[in-house]
Amino acid sequence: MTELENDRLLRALCRQPVDVTPVWMMRQAGRYLPEYRATRERAGDFLSLCKNPELACEVTLQPVERFPLDAAILFSDILTVPDAMGLGLYFEAGEGPRFQHPVRDERDVERLPVPDPEAELGYVMAAVRTIRAALAGRVPLLGFSGSPWTLATYMVEGGSSQTFRRSKRMLYERPDLMHRLLDKVTRAVIAYLDAQIAAGAQAIMVFDTWGGALSTRAFREFSLAYLERIVAGLTREAEGRRVPVILFTKGGGLWLEDLAATGADALGLDWSTDIGQARHRVGDRVALQGNLDPSVLYASPAHIREQVALVLDDYGPGSGHVFNLGHGIHPEVDPEHAAAMIEAVHDLSRRYHA
Amino acid sequence: MTELENDRLLRALCRQPVDVTPVWMMRQAGRYLPEYRATRERAGDFLSLCKNPELACEVTLQPVERFPLDAAILFSDILTVPDAMGLGLYFEAGEGPRFQHPVRDERDVERLPVPDPEAELGYVMAAVRTIRAALAGRVPLLGFSGSPWTLATYMVEGGSSQTFRRSKRMLYERPDLMHRLLDKVTRAVIAYLDAQIAAGAQAIMVFDTWGGALSTRAFREFSLAYLERIVAGLTREAEGRRVPVILFTKGGGLWLEDLAATGADALGLDWSTDIGQARHRVGDRVALQGNLDPSVLYASPAHIREQVALVLDDYGPGSGHVFNLGHGIHPEVDPEHAAAMIEAVHDLSRRYHA
Repeated sequence: MTELENDRLLRALCRQPVDVTPVWMMRQAGRYLPEYRATRERAGDFLSLCKNPELACEVTLQPVERFPLDAAILFSDILTVPDAMGLGLYFEAGEGPRFQHPVRDERDVERLPVPDPEAELGYVMAAVRTIRAALAGRVPLLGFSGSPWTLATYMVEGGSSQTFRRSKRMLYERPDLMHRLLDKVTRAVIAYLDAQIAAGAQAIMVFDTWGGALSTRAFREFSLAYLERIVAGLTREAEGRRVPVILFTKGGGLWLEDLAATGADALGLDWSTDIGQARHRVGDRVALQGNLDPSVLYASPAHIREQVALVLDDYGPGSGHVFNLGHGIHPEVDPEHAAAMIEAVHDLSRRYHA
Repeated sequence: MTELENDRLLRALCRQPVDVTPVWMMRQAGRYLPEYRATRERAGDFLSLCKNPELACEVTLQPVERFPLDAAILFSDILTVPDAMGLGLYFEAGEGPRFQHPVRDERDVERLPVPDPEAELGYVMAAVRTIRAALAGRVPLLGFSGSPWTLATYMVEGGSSQTFRRSKRMLYERPDLMHRLLDKVTRAVIAYLDAQIAAGAQAIMVFDTWGGALSTRAFREFSLAYLERIVAGLTREAEGRRVPVILFTKGGGLWLEDLAATGADALGLDWSTDIGQARHRVGDRVALQGNLDPSVLYASPAHIREQVALVLDDYGPGSGHVFNLGHGIHPEVDPEHAAAMIEAVHDLSRRYHA
């Protein structure tokens, strides 16, 4: 256990005072960085990179070494969990992720195991330990998982989807079966995140990437209910400090009150939601993370600074804000533009924490 | 001028009493219908189909002949307006729409003409007249346009986009230039919709398909302001009756109050918004159109009926509801499933209008 040199992220997620607003970026270890592309080339392919703890550590640290970020996030993929449940994850060049054995019926759901994370996802836990050692207390390490509903869509579709044809058909025709699948995935996710925490993850983020593809009623029944179970089921303290949980439902701006009521410490916001209005709606129940439009980073550093100023001003004075993009950083962004955003956040936020 | 046999749509859009809730489907004239696929084959390609008034009339009427729908909607494409502004629309097989001459700089914006719709988009007006004659008063005919922001994204990108790299860059770096572009497009859209109304369109829908890709602040400045100008600028009466205007911002559930304040008669809702809550928020300012998840139509007719019942119940008693999907019907849907939805709407809604 090393003392953290920079614990702004953990403090802001718990709405404790900070000197400046902490900032990190979803997909900060990613294709926009030439050093990432070089490591990935060496790894051979994306999945080999995820499954190699040394290389996963290397790419996790790259953005932290390049920029004064306030957090590192484990480099991995949300589909490692279904892969460990026996679905056979693979990536085809130019295509999205695919499963060799999608979940289509009763029997497929019944035979799904709930994997033991140390045994079946040991490479992730090894990566967490390696990264913690390499970080040596500079900034906290975020662990993460996909939400049960999000993982279930990939598991039922057999890959990415535009219209969720099979998964929504199961949801509407066989809600009982979808619930059984979600129950198993939820147990797997809780065990997986708890193992990440035991291995050294200091905060947790749950990506409910496809929650926003649901109707309000279906969201509550098939996504929110399981997010709630995760929040209630997770270890929330480690190394003598709170392990905050961030929930991020992309497209979930209408449901912030529901999400705040889960008991999560913080909510991620996409950029369609006004962060000032969001703060007003959730009050002091949760911290908020976000929410610059990632496409702002296509503009010049001076314009990026203007837009950062607006988000900081929308949130207003006081702690409880973790600056981030409203979605992952786009692969074509110039790393200097990311640098401009991070510098602007630290510079311009000081006055809100006086 | 023929008396309308079925004016439920126009009555519901004006929140006047109806016997049952009217229903139509976005993209009801589309690829899920074998008769549409046959006509399109005969036309050669999509653009030739749009530009041939006889064939456009044929496909517009196909769903009205097959199902007891309460409206026909002009078969056309939102990109006919930029095409008439000289951008050179074309479609590549398997790809989305493309422009030969995208709008990239000052000079491109300056030289854009505001087309005379009867002269440059005469094939659309001819289609409207042909369809009105062929409908012979059975149901009203909806005209439509893309919103200025939505059209501008295609014009600047040169086609479809995931991240709006060029259009958002222009928006953030050169807001003045983006506003000049939007101003021109808005004038073109108003002239285009007015010409549709003069030719016989009895209600108007504006598709703000990409408004939801903006931050709240950018939405207000770059999309909402122009929707407002359209609503204020349009002819609102023809043939002795109100021509209602429906605004549909996909992903705009957070902004319904703003959209209702434009003076539109009705708002389209995607399926993420609870229609009961939406009604509560907008009060009696506007009617609401929507909002069944289009993926419900993948489920069996019995399950479709259940989900229709929930949407009707969420809206509750009284007029002001036009039933629709929350987005266009998916091409893989079985036409019998669309039939089940339409039948369920008419059957189950009667009690809410007693």
